[in-house]
Amino acid sequence: MSATVMDGRATAATVVADVASRVSTLKRPPKLVFVQATDDAASASYVRSKARLAAKAGIDNETLKLPPTVDQEGLEATVRDLNVDDGVDGILVQLPLYPHLNAQSILEAIDPAKDVDGFHPENVGRLWLGQAAWAPATPQGVIELLDRHAIDVAGVNVTIVGRSMLVGKPAAALFLQRHASVTMVHSRSRDMVQHVRAADVIVAAAGRPGLIKREMVKAGAVAIDVGQSMSDGALVGDVAPDVAEVASFVTPTPGGTGPMTVAMVVKNTLLAYETRLGPNA
Amino acid sequence: MSATVMDGRATAATVVADVASRVSTLKRPPKLVFVQATDDAASASYVRSKARLAAKAGIDNETLKLPPTVDQEGLEATVRDLNVDDGVDGILVQLPLYPHLNAQSILEAIDPAKDVDGFHPENVGRLWLGQAAWAPATPQGVIELLDRHAIDVAGVNVTIVGRSMLVGKPAAALFLQRHASVTMVHSRSRDMVQHVRAADVIVAAAGRPGLIKREMVKAGAVAIDVGQSMSDGALVGDVAPDVAEVASFVTPTPGGTGPMTVAMVVKNTLLAYETRLGPNA
Repeated sequence: MSATVMDGRATAATVVADVASRVSTLKRPPKLVFVQATDDAASASYVRSKARLAAKAGIDNETLKLPPTVDQEGLEATVRDLNVDDGVDGILVQLPLYPHLNAQSILEAIDPAKDVDGFHPENVGRLWLGQAAWAPATPQGVIELLDRHAIDVAGVNVTIVGRSMLVGKPAAALFLQRHASVTMVHSRSRDMVQHVRAADVIVAAAGRPGLIKREMVKAGAVAIDVGQSMSDGALVGDVAPDVAEVASFVTPTPGGTGPMTVAMVVKNTLLAYETRLGPNA
Repeated sequence: MSATVMDGRATAATVVADVASRVSTLKRPPKLVFVQATDDAASASYVRSKARLAAKAGIDNETLKLPPTVDQEGLEATVRDLNVDDGVDGILVQLPLYPHLNAQSILEAIDPAKDVDGFHPENVGRLWLGQAAWAPATPQGVIELLDRHAIDVAGVNVTIVGRSMLVGKPAAALFLQRHASVTMVHSRSRDMVQHVRAADVIVAAAGRPGLIKREMVKAGAVAIDVGQSMSDGALVGDVAPDVAEVASFVTPTPGGTGPMTVAMVVKNTLLAYETRLGPNA
Protein backbone atom coordinates (compact mmCIF):
# COMPACT_ATOMS: atom_id res chain seq x y z
CA MET A 1 0.00 0.00 0.00
CA SER A 2 1.26 3.46 -0.82
CA ALA A 3 0.35 6.79 0.70
CA THR A 4 -1.74 9.45 -0.95
CA VAL A 5 0.59 12.28 -1.95
CA MET A 6 -0.90 15.62 -0.95
CA ASP A 7 -0.37 18.03 -3.82
CA GLY A 8 0.62 21.32 -2.21
CA ARG A 9 0.68 23.21 -5.50
CA ALA A 10 -2.86 22.18 -6.43
CA THR A 11 -4.17 22.86 -2.91
CA ALA A 12 -2.42 26.23 -2.81
CA ALA A 13 -4.05 27.11 -6.15
CA THR A 14 -7.45 26.28 -4.64
CA VAL A 15 -6.73 28.49 -1.62
CA VAL A 16 -5.67 31.34 -3.88
CA ALA A 17 -8.79 30.91 -6.04
CA ASP A 18 -10.93 31.12 -2.88
CA VAL A 19 -9.11 34.26 -1.79
CA ALA A 20 -9.52 35.77 -5.28
CA SER A 21 -13.22 35.06 -5.18
CA ARG A 22 -13.59 36.85 -1.86
CA VAL A 23 -11.32 39.73 -2.95
CA SER A 24 -13.52 40.38 -5.98
CA THR A 25 -16.38 41.30 -3.61
CA LEU A 26 -14.38 43.85 -1.58
CA LYS A 27 -14.54 47.64 -1.86
CA ARG A 28 -10.91 47.73 -2.92
CA PRO A 29 -8.16 45.13 -3.32
CA PRO A 30 -6.15 44.44 -0.17
CA LYS A 31 -2.54 45.58 -0.40
CA LEU A 32 0.56 43.72 0.74
CA VAL A 33 3.98 45.38 0.94
CA PHE A 34 7.20 43.38 1.01
CA VAL A 35 10.16 45.03 2.67
CA GLN A 36 13.31 43.50 1.29
CA ALA A 37 16.42 44.55 3.19
CA THR A 38 18.70 41.83 1.96
CA ASP A 39 20.83 40.82 -1.03
CA ASP A 40 20.09 37.15 -0.46
CA ALA A 41 19.10 35.54 -3.77
CA ALA A 42 16.83 32.93 -2.20
CA SER A 43 14.94 35.65 -0.29
CA ALA A 44 14.48 37.66 -3.46
CA SER A 45 13.11 34.63 -5.28
CA TYR A 46 10.81 33.89 -2.35
CA VAL A 47 9.45 37.46 -2.38
CA ARG A 48 8.83 37.17 -6.14
CA SER A 49 6.86 33.96 -5.74
CA LYS A 50 4.73 35.49 -2.96
CA ALA A 51 4.16 38.60 -5.10
CA ARG A 52 3.14 36.46 -8.08
CA LEU A 53 0.60 34.50 -6.02
CA ALA A 54 -0.73 37.69 -4.39
CA ALA A 55 -1.33 39.14 -7.87
CA LYS A 56 -3.19 35.97 -8.87
CA ALA A 57 -5.49 36.49 -5.90
CA GLY A 58 -6.16 40.08 -6.94
CA ILE A 59 -4.10 41.46 -4.06
CA ASP A 60 -2.13 44.62 -4.78
CA ASN A 61 1.48 44.30 -3.83
CA GLU A 62 4.64 46.26 -3.85
CA THR A 63 8.23 45.39 -2.99
CA LEU A 64 10.38 47.98 -1.25
CA LYS A 65 13.94 46.96 -1.93
CA LEU A 66 16.21 48.79 0.48
CA PRO A 67 19.91 49.34 -0.29
CA PRO A 68 22.71 47.75 1.77
CA THR A 69 23.37 51.22 3.17
CA VAL A 70 20.03 51.31 5.00
CA ASP A 71 20.44 51.52 8.75
CA GLN A 72 18.15 50.27 11.53
CA GLU A 73 16.46 53.65 11.88
CA GLY A 74 15.88 53.87 8.12
CA LEU A 75 14.33 50.42 8.03
CA GLU A 76 12.15 51.18 11.05
CA ALA A 77 11.05 54.46 9.48
CA THR A 78 9.99 52.52 6.37
CA VAL A 79 7.92 50.19 8.53
CA ARG A 80 6.38 53.08 10.49
CA ASP A 81 5.30 54.78 7.26
CA LEU A 82 3.59 51.57 6.17
CA ASN A 83 1.93 51.21 9.60
CA VAL A 84 0.15 54.54 9.24
CA ASP A 85 -0.66 54.18 5.52
CA ASP A 86 -4.35 53.30 5.50
CA GLY A 87 -4.02 51.81 2.02
CA VAL A 88 -1.59 49.14 3.25
CA ASP A 89 -3.13 46.03 4.82
CA GLY A 90 -0.19 43.71 5.19
CA ILE A 91 3.53 44.27 5.83
CA LEU A 92 6.03 41.49 5.35
CA VAL A 93 9.68 42.07 6.23
CA GLN A 94 11.55 39.32 4.45
CA LEU A 95 14.17 37.55 6.58
CA PRO A 96 17.12 37.29 6.82
CA LEU A 97 18.03 40.99 6.83
CA TYR A 98 21.38 42.51 5.91
CA PRO A 99 23.67 41.26 8.70
CA HIS A 100 24.04 44.68 10.36
CA LEU A 101 20.29 44.93 11.01
CA ASN A 102 18.35 43.60 14.01
CA ALA A 103 15.40 41.44 12.99
CA GLN A 104 13.57 41.23 16.31
CA SER A 105 13.24 44.97 16.77
CA ILE A 106 11.93 45.34 13.18
CA LEU A 107 9.39 42.57 13.65
CA GLU A 108 8.17 44.40 16.77
CA ALA A 109 7.96 47.70 14.88
CA ILE A 110 5.26 46.33 12.57
CA ASP A 111 1.69 47.20 13.56
CA PRO A 112 0.32 43.86 14.86
CA ALA A 113 -2.83 44.48 12.78
CA LYS A 114 -0.70 44.41 9.59
CA ASP A 115 1.75 41.71 10.67
CA VAL A 116 0.76 39.03 8.15
CA ASP A 117 3.71 36.86 9.21
CA GLY A 118 2.31 36.70 12.76
CA PHE A 119 5.74 37.06 14.39
CA HIS A 120 4.98 40.13 16.56
CA PRO A 121 4.96 39.14 20.28
CA GLU A 122 1.37 40.33 20.61
CA ASN A 123 0.28 38.10 17.73
CA VAL A 124 2.24 35.15 19.10
CA GLY A 125 0.41 35.68 22.40
CA ARG A 126 -2.99 35.95 20.73
CA LEU A 127 -2.34 32.73 18.88
CA TRP A 128 -1.81 30.89 22.18
CA LEU A 129 -4.79 32.66 23.73
CA GLY A 130 -7.00 31.56 20.84
CA GLN A 131 -7.62 35.20 19.80
CA ALA A 132 -5.60 35.41 16.60
CA ALA A 133 -7.28 36.25 13.29
CA TRP A 134 -4.42 34.53 11.47
CA ALA A 135 -1.32 32.47 12.23
CA PRO A 136 2.22 32.19 10.85
CA ALA A 137 1.99 31.01 7.28
CA THR A 138 3.89 27.72 7.38
CA PRO A 139 2.01 26.00 10.23
CA GLN A 140 -1.29 27.51 9.04
CA GLY A 141 -0.53 26.01 5.63
CA VAL A 142 -0.06 22.60 7.26
CA ILE A 143 -3.47 22.87 8.93
CA GLU A 144 -5.10 24.05 5.70
CA LEU A 145 -3.59 21.12 3.80
CA LEU A 146 -5.04 18.69 6.36
CA ASP A 147 -8.42 20.45 6.30
CA ARG A 148 -8.62 20.29 2.53
CA HIS A 149 -7.91 16.55 2.71
CA ALA A 150 -10.63 16.13 5.36
CA ILE A 151 -8.15 14.88 7.96
CA ASP A 152 -9.59 15.53 11.42
CA VAL A 153 -6.97 15.77 14.16
CA ALA A 154 -9.24 16.05 17.22
CA GLY A 155 -8.09 13.68 19.94
CA VAL A 156 -5.28 12.10 17.91
CA ASN A 157 -1.54 12.17 18.55
CA VAL A 158 0.37 14.86 16.70
CA THR A 159 4.15 14.84 17.03
CA ILE A 160 5.97 17.97 15.93
CA VAL A 161 9.69 17.60 15.29
CA GLY A 162 11.43 20.96 15.68
CA ARG A 163 10.59 23.88 17.94
CA SER A 164 11.23 27.05 15.95
CA MET A 165 9.10 30.17 16.35
CA LEU A 166 8.35 29.96 12.60
CA VAL A 167 6.98 26.44 12.52
CA GLY A 168 7.15 24.10 15.50
CA LYS A 169 5.77 26.30 18.27
CA PRO A 170 2.93 27.93 16.33
CA ALA A 171 2.05 24.52 14.87
CA ALA A 172 1.65 23.25 18.44
CA ALA A 173 -0.77 26.09 19.22
CA LEU A 174 -2.82 25.39 16.10
CA PHE A 175 -3.03 21.63 16.62
CA LEU A 176 -3.99 22.17 20.27
CA GLN A 177 -6.81 24.46 19.10
CA ARG A 178 -7.94 21.58 16.90
CA HIS A 179 -8.05 19.41 20.05
CA ALA A 180 -5.12 17.15 19.16
CA SER A 181 -2.75 15.71 21.75
CA VAL A 182 0.43 17.55 20.87
CA THR A 183 4.00 16.39 21.46
CA MET A 184 6.95 18.64 20.71
CA VAL A 185 10.33 16.99 20.21
CA HIS A 186 13.65 18.44 19.07
CA SER A 187 17.39 17.87 18.91
CA ARG A 188 17.63 17.50 22.69
CA SER A 189 14.83 14.93 22.99
CA ARG A 190 15.85 11.54 24.36
CA ASP A 191 12.84 9.64 22.99
CA MET A 192 12.24 11.34 19.66
CA VAL A 193 11.80 8.01 17.87
CA GLN A 194 9.15 6.72 20.28
CA HIS A 195 7.20 9.96 20.02
CA VAL A 196 7.26 9.83 16.23
CA ARG A 197 6.20 6.17 16.32
CA ALA A 198 3.20 7.00 18.52
CA ALA A 199 2.05 9.76 16.16
CA ASP A 200 -1.05 9.70 14.00
CA VAL A 201 0.20 12.92 12.42
CA ILE A 202 3.89 13.80 12.12
CA VAL A 203 4.99 17.35 11.36
CA ALA A 204 8.69 17.24 10.47
CA ALA A 205 10.31 20.66 10.73
CA ALA A 206 13.84 19.94 11.84
CA GLY A 207 15.70 20.74 8.62
CA ARG A 208 17.55 17.41 8.81
CA PRO A 209 17.29 15.49 5.54
CA GLY A 210 15.72 12.03 5.87
CA LEU A 211 15.43 12.31 9.68
CA ILE A 212 12.04 10.57 9.69
CA LYS A 213 12.61 7.03 8.48
CA ARG A 214 10.13 4.40 7.40
CA GLU A 215 10.61 2.24 10.49
CA MET A 216 9.76 5.18 12.75
CA VAL A 217 6.33 5.73 11.23
CA LYS A 218 3.15 3.95 12.34
CA ALA A 219 1.17 2.30 9.54
CA GLY A 220 -1.47 4.71 8.33
CA ALA A 221 0.07 7.82 9.88
CA VAL A 222 0.04 11.19 8.10
CA ALA A 223 3.54 12.58 7.46
CA ILE A 224 3.77 16.32 6.79
CA ASP A 225 7.20 17.43 5.67
CA VAL A 226 8.17 21.03 6.38
CA GLY A 227 11.93 20.45 6.33
CA GLN A 228 13.85 21.87 3.43
CA SER A 229 17.54 21.26 2.89
CA MET A 230 19.74 21.33 -0.19
CA SER A 231 21.44 18.04 -0.98
CA ASP A 232 23.47 17.59 -4.18
CA GLY A 233 21.69 20.59 -5.66
CA ALA A 234 18.23 19.25 -4.92
CA LEU A 235 15.65 20.35 -2.35
CA VAL A 236 15.05 17.51 0.11
CA GLY A 237 12.77 17.17 3.11
CA ASP A 238 13.02 15.69 6.60
CA VAL A 239 10.86 12.69 5.67
CA ALA A 240 12.55 9.81 3.87
CA PRO A 241 10.84 8.93 0.56
CA ASP A 242 10.06 5.34 1.59
CA VAL A 243 7.85 6.58 4.45
CA ALA A 244 5.22 6.73 1.68
CA GLU A 245 5.13 2.91 1.80
CA VAL A 246 3.63 2.89 5.31
CA ALA A 247 1.94 6.30 5.74
CA SER A 248 -1.62 7.09 4.65
CA PHE A 249 -0.73 10.61 3.47
CA VAL A 250 2.58 12.29 2.71
CA THR A 251 3.63 15.64 1.27
CA PRO A 252 6.15 15.87 -1.57
CA THR A 253 9.28 18.04 -1.41
CA PRO A 254 9.22 20.29 -3.35
CA GLY A 255 5.56 20.93 -4.08
CA GLY A 256 4.14 20.13 -0.64
CA THR A 257 4.15 22.52 2.29
CA GLY A 258 6.23 25.17 0.47
CA PRO A 259 3.48 26.33 -1.91
CA MET A 260 0.98 26.21 0.98
CA THR A 261 3.15 28.67 2.94
CA VAL A 262 3.09 31.13 0.07
CA ALA A 263 -0.68 30.73 -0.32
CA MET A 264 -1.22 31.42 3.38
CA VAL A 265 0.70 34.71 3.16
CA VAL A 266 -1.82 35.72 0.52
CA LYS A 267 -4.76 34.52 2.62
CA ASN A 268 -3.39 36.28 5.72
CA THR A 269 -3.36 39.57 3.79
CA LEU A 270 -7.07 39.14 3.10
CA LEU A 271 -7.68 38.28 6.78
CA ALA A 272 -5.70 41.35 7.89
CA TYR A 273 -7.74 43.53 5.54
CA GLU A 274 -11.05 42.07 6.79
CA THR A 275 -10.06 42.28 10.45
CA ARG A 276 -8.82 45.86 10.23
CA LEU A 277 -11.69 47.21 8.13
CA GLY A 278 -14.39 45.13 9.80
CA PRO A 279 -17.93 45.62 8.45
CA ASN A 280 -16.61 48.27 6.04
CA ALA A 281 -14.52 45.71 4.16
CA MET B 1 9.61 2.33 47.89
CA SER B 2 7.86 5.58 48.51
CA ALA B 3 8.26 8.91 46.75
CA THR B 4 9.91 11.97 48.22
CA VAL B 5 7.20 14.48 49.02
CA MET B 6 8.18 17.92 47.79
CA ASP B 7 7.27 20.42 50.48
CA GLY B 8 5.81 23.40 48.67
CA ARG B 9 5.45 25.48 51.82
CA ALA B 10 9.11 25.05 52.79
CA THR B 11 10.32 25.67 49.24
CA ALA B 12 8.09 28.73 48.92
CA ALA B 13 9.55 30.07 52.16
CA THR B 14 13.05 29.64 50.71
CA VAL B 15 12.04 31.52 47.56
CA VAL B 16 10.56 34.33 49.64
CA ALA B 17 13.68 34.50 51.79
CA ASP B 18 15.79 34.81 48.63
CA VAL B 19 13.53 37.58 47.34
CA ALA B 20 13.71 39.36 50.71
CA SER B 21 17.48 39.18 50.65
CA ARG B 22 17.58 40.78 47.20
CA VAL B 23 14.93 43.37 48.11
CA SER B 24 17.00 44.53 51.08
CA THR B 25 19.68 45.71 48.63
CA LEU B 26 17.34 47.80 46.45
CA LYS B 27 16.95 51.57 46.47
CA ARG B 28 13.34 51.22 47.54
CA PRO B 29 11.01 48.26 48.15
CA PRO B 30 9.13 47.08 45.07
CA LYS B 31 5.39 47.67 45.24
CA LEU B 32 2.59 45.32 44.23
CA VAL B 33 -1.03 46.44 43.94
CA PHE B 34 -3.91 43.98 44.02
CA VAL B 35 -7.08 45.08 42.27
CA GLN B 36 -9.98 43.19 43.77
CA ALA B 37 -13.20 43.64 41.82
CA THR B 38 -15.06 40.69 43.24
CA ASP B 39 -17.04 39.59 46.30
CA ASP B 40 -15.76 36.03 45.96
CA ALA B 41 -14.56 34.81 49.37
CA ALA B 42 -11.92 32.46 47.95
CA SER B 43 -10.44 35.30 45.86
CA ALA B 44 -10.31 37.57 48.90
CA SER B 45 -8.51 34.90 50.92
CA TYR B 46 -6.12 34.32 48.03
CA VAL B 47 -5.29 38.03 47.81
CA ARG B 48 -4.66 38.10 51.55
CA SER B 49 -2.22 35.19 51.38
CA LYS B 50 -0.35 36.83 48.50
CA ALA B 51 -0.24 40.12 50.41
CA ARG B 52 1.07 38.36 53.52
CA LEU B 53 3.87 36.67 51.59
CA ALA B 54 4.72 39.89 49.76
CA ALA B 55 5.09 41.64 53.11
CA LYS B 56 7.38 38.85 54.31
CA ALA B 57 9.61 39.51 51.31
CA GLY B 58 9.75 43.22 52.10
CA ILE B 59 7.51 44.10 49.15
CA ASP B 60 5.10 46.97 49.68
CA ASN B 61 1.59 46.06 48.78
CA GLU B 62 -1.85 47.53 48.67
CA THR B 63 -5.25 46.08 47.88
CA LEU B 64 -7.75 48.22 46.00
CA LYS B 65 -11.15 46.71 46.74
CA LEU B 66 -13.63 48.04 44.22
CA PRO B 67 -17.36 48.09 44.98
CA PRO B 68 -19.89 45.96 43.05
CA THR B 69 -21.07 49.19 41.42
CA VAL B 70 -17.77 49.66 39.57
CA ASP B 71 -18.19 49.54 35.81
CA GLN B 72 -15.73 48.47 33.13
CA GLU B 73 -14.56 52.03 32.54
CA GLY B 74 -14.03 52.59 36.26
CA LEU B 75 -11.99 49.41 36.57
CA GLU B 76 -9.92 50.29 33.51
CA ALA B 77 -9.33 53.80 34.86
CA THR B 78 -8.00 52.25 38.08
CA VAL B 79 -5.60 50.11 36.08
CA ARG B 80 -4.50 53.04 33.91
CA ASP B 81 -3.69 55.10 37.02
CA LEU B 82 -1.53 52.26 38.31
CA ASN B 83 0.17 51.92 34.91
CA VAL B 84 1.44 55.49 35.03
CA ASP B 85 2.27 55.50 38.76
CA ASP B 86 6.05 55.19 38.81
CA GLY B 87 5.95 53.90 42.38
CA VAL B 88 3.94 50.83 41.35
CA ASP B 89 5.92 47.88 39.99
CA GLY B 90 3.35 45.12 39.78
CA ILE B 91 -0.40 45.09 39.13
CA LEU B 92 -2.47 42.01 39.82
CA VAL B 93 -6.16 42.00 38.92
CA GLN B 94 -7.60 39.11 40.87
CA LEU B 95 -9.93 36.85 38.89
CA PRO B 96 -12.80 36.13 38.69
CA LEU B 97 -14.26 39.66 38.43
CA TYR B 98 -17.80 40.72 39.26
CA PRO B 99 -19.85 38.95 36.58
CA HIS B 100 -20.73 42.15 34.69
CA LEU B 101 -17.05 42.92 34.01
CA ASN B 102 -14.93 41.69 31.10
CA ALA B 103 -11.69 40.06 32.25
CA GLN B 104 -9.84 39.90 28.94
CA SER B 105 -10.06 43.62 28.24
CA ILE B 106 -8.84 44.42 31.77
CA LEU B 107 -5.91 42.03 31.47
CA GLU B 108 -4.97 43.80 28.24
CA ALA B 109 -5.24 47.22 29.89
CA ILE B 110 -2.39 46.42 32.28
CA ASP B 111 1.01 47.73 31.21
CA PRO B 112 2.88 44.56 30.14
CA ALA B 113 5.88 45.77 32.15
CA LYS B 114 3.78 45.61 35.35
CA ASP B 115 1.75 42.51 34.46
CA VAL B 116 3.11 40.17 37.15
CA ASP B 117 0.52 37.51 36.24
CA GLY B 118 1.94 37.33 32.71
CA PHE B 119 -1.49 37.06 31.08
CA HIS B 120 -1.19 40.08 28.72
CA PRO B 121 -1.00 38.85 25.08
CA GLU B 122 2.37 40.54 24.64
CA ASN B 123 3.76 38.69 27.66
CA VAL B 124 2.27 35.40 26.50
CA GLY B 125 4.00 35.97 23.17
CA ARG B 126 7.33 36.87 24.79
CA LEU B 127 7.14 33.69 26.86
CA TRP B 128 6.92 31.58 23.69
CA LEU B 129 9.62 33.67 22.00
CA GLY B 130 11.95 33.11 24.96
CA GLN B 131 12.03 36.85 25.74
CA ALA B 132 9.97 36.97 28.94
CA ALA B 133 11.51 38.26 32.17
CA TRP B 134 8.90 36.26 34.13
CA ALA B 135 6.16 33.72 33.51
CA PRO B 136 2.69 33.03 34.92
CA ALA B 137 3.08 32.12 38.58
CA THR B 138 1.68 28.60 38.69
CA PRO B 139 3.81 26.98 35.96
CA GLN B 140 6.83 29.05 37.04
CA GLY B 141 6.29 27.67 40.54
CA VAL B 142 6.34 24.13 39.13
CA ILE B 143 9.69 24.79 37.43
CA GLU B 144 11.11 26.42 40.57
CA LEU B 145 10.04 23.42 42.67
CA LEU B 146 11.84 21.08 40.26
CA ASP B 147 14.93 23.32 40.19
CA ARG B 148 15.14 23.44 43.97
CA HIS B 149 15.00 19.64 44.05
CA ALA B 150 17.75 19.45 41.40
CA ILE B 151 15.48 17.68 38.91
CA ASP B 152 16.83 18.30 35.41
CA VAL B 153 14.21 17.97 32.67
CA ALA B 154 16.43 18.39 29.58
CA GLY B 155 15.65 15.68 27.04
CA VAL B 156 13.10 13.85 29.18
CA ASN B 157 9.39 13.31 28.56
CA VAL B 158 7.11 15.81 30.24
CA THR B 159 3.38 15.21 29.92
CA ILE B 160 1.10 18.10 30.83
CA VAL B 161 -2.53 17.23 31.51
CA GLY B 162 -4.74 20.26 30.90
CA ARG B 163 -4.33 23.11 28.44
CA SER B 164 -5.45 26.27 30.23
CA MET B 165 -3.81 29.64 29.61
CA LEU B 166 -3.06 29.80 33.36
CA VAL B 167 -1.17 26.53 33.67
CA GLY B 168 -0.98 24.00 30.83
CA LYS B 169 0.07 26.20 27.94
CA PRO B 170 2.65 28.37 29.75
CA ALA B 171 4.01 25.21 31.43
CA ALA B 172 4.60 23.78 27.95
CA ALA B 173 6.57 26.90 26.97
CA LEU B 174 8.71 26.71 30.12
CA PHE B 175 9.47 23.00 29.85
CA LEU B 176 10.35 23.43 26.17
CA GLN B 177 12.80 26.18 27.17
CA ARG B 178 14.33 23.65 29.55
CA HIS B 179 14.78 21.32 26.56
CA ALA B 180 12.22 18.72 27.60
CA SER B 181 10.10 16.77 25.13
CA VAL B 182 6.67 18.18 25.90
CA THR B 183 3.32 16.47 25.40
CA MET B 184 0.06 18.31 26.02
CA VAL B 185 -3.04 16.21 26.64
CA HIS B 186 -6.55 17.23 27.70
CA SER B 187 -10.16 16.13 27.91
CA ARG B 188 -10.34 15.48 24.16
CA SER B 189 -7.18 13.33 24.03
CA ARG B 190 -7.69 9.73 22.90
CA ASP B 191 -4.43 8.40 24.37
CA MET B 192 -4.11 10.40 27.58
CA VAL B 193 -3.19 7.30 29.59
CA GLN B 194 -0.37 6.25 27.26
CA HIS B 195 1.08 9.75 27.28
CA VAL B 196 1.03 9.85 31.08
CA ARG B 197 2.61 6.40 31.22
CA ALA B 198 5.48 7.52 28.96
CA ALA B 199 6.19 10.57 31.13
CA ASP B 200 9.26 11.12 33.27
CA VAL B 201 7.54 14.22 34.64
CA ILE B 202 3.75 14.55 34.90
CA VAL B 203 2.14 17.94 35.43
CA ALA B 204 -1.50 17.34 36.34
CA ALA B 205 -3.61 20.46 35.85
CA ALA B 206 -6.99 19.16 34.80
CA GLY B 207 -8.97 19.89 37.96
CA ARG B 208 -10.31 16.31 38.02
CA PRO B 209 -9.77 14.66 41.43
CA GLY B 210 -7.70 11.48 41.30
CA LEU B 211 -7.45 11.54 37.48
CA ILE B 212 -3.83 10.32 37.58
CA LYS B 213 -3.88 6.81 39.02
CA ARG B 214 -1.04 4.67 40.27
CA GLU B 215 -1.19 2.25 37.32
CA MET B 216 -0.77 5.16 34.87
CA VAL B 217 2.53 6.29 36.34
CA LYS B 218 5.94 4.93 35.34
CA ALA B 219 8.14 3.78 38.21
CA GLY B 220 10.39 6.63 39.26
CA ALA B 221 8.40 9.37 37.51
CA VAL B 222 7.94 12.80 39.06
CA ALA B 223 4.27 13.72 39.62
CA ILE B 224 3.48 17.41 40.05
CA ASP B 225 -0.09 18.08 41.11
CA VAL B 226 -1.57 21.43 40.15
CA GLY B 227 -5.21 20.30 40.25
CA GLN B 228 -7.34 21.61 43.08
CA SER B 229 -10.90 20.48 43.67
CA MET B 230 -13.11 20.42 46.74
CA SER B 231 -14.30 16.98 47.76
CA ASP B 232 -16.25 16.45 51.00
CA GLY B 233 -14.95 19.78 52.24
CA ALA B 234 -11.31 18.93 51.59
CA LEU B 235 -8.92 20.22 48.93
CA VAL B 236 -7.89 17.34 46.67
CA GLY B 237 -5.56 17.15 43.70
CA ASP B 238 -5.59 15.42 40.32
CA VAL B 239 -3.00 12.84 41.43
CA ALA B 240 -4.27 9.86 43.45
CA PRO B 241 -2.44 9.48 46.79
CA ASP B 242 -1.13 5.97 45.99
CA VAL B 243 0.88 7.35 43.06
CA ALA B 244 3.45 8.07 45.78
CA GLU B 245 4.09 4.29 45.93
CA VAL B 246 5.61 4.28 42.41
CA ALA B 247 6.77 7.86 41.77
CA SER B 248 10.17 9.24 42.77
CA PHE B 249 8.78 12.66 43.73
CA VAL B 250 5.24 13.87 44.38
CA THR B 251 3.69 17.12 45.60
CA PRO B 252 1.16 17.17 48.42
CA THR B 253 -2.27 18.85 48.14
CA PRO B 254 -2.55 21.18 49.93
CA GLY B 255 0.98 22.40 50.58
CA GLY B 256 2.53 21.61 47.20
CA THR B 257 2.18 23.76 44.12
CA GLY B 258 -0.28 26.18 45.77
CA PRO B 259 2.25 27.90 48.05
CA MET B 260 4.74 27.96 45.16
CA THR B 261 2.26 29.93 43.05
CA VAL B 262 1.94 32.57 45.76
CA ALA B 263 5.72 32.75 46.15
CA MET B 264 6.17 33.26 42.41
CA VAL B 265 3.79 36.24 42.42
CA VAL B 266 6.13 37.79 44.98
CA LYS B 267 9.21 36.90 42.94
CA ASN B 268 7.61 38.23 39.74
CA THR B 269 7.10 41.59 41.43
CA LEU B 270 10.82 41.76 42.14
CA LEU B 271 11.57 40.76 38.52
CA ALA B 272 9.17 43.42 37.22
CA TYR B 273 10.86 46.04 39.42
CA GLU B 274 14.34 45.00 38.26
CA THR B 275 13.35 44.81 34.59
CA ARG B 276 11.60 48.18 34.57
CA LEU B 277 14.25 50.07 36.56
CA GLY B 278 17.23 48.31 35.00
CA PRO B 279 20.64 49.40 36.31
CA ASN B 280 18.93 51.97 38.55
CA ALA B 281 17.23 49.27 40.60
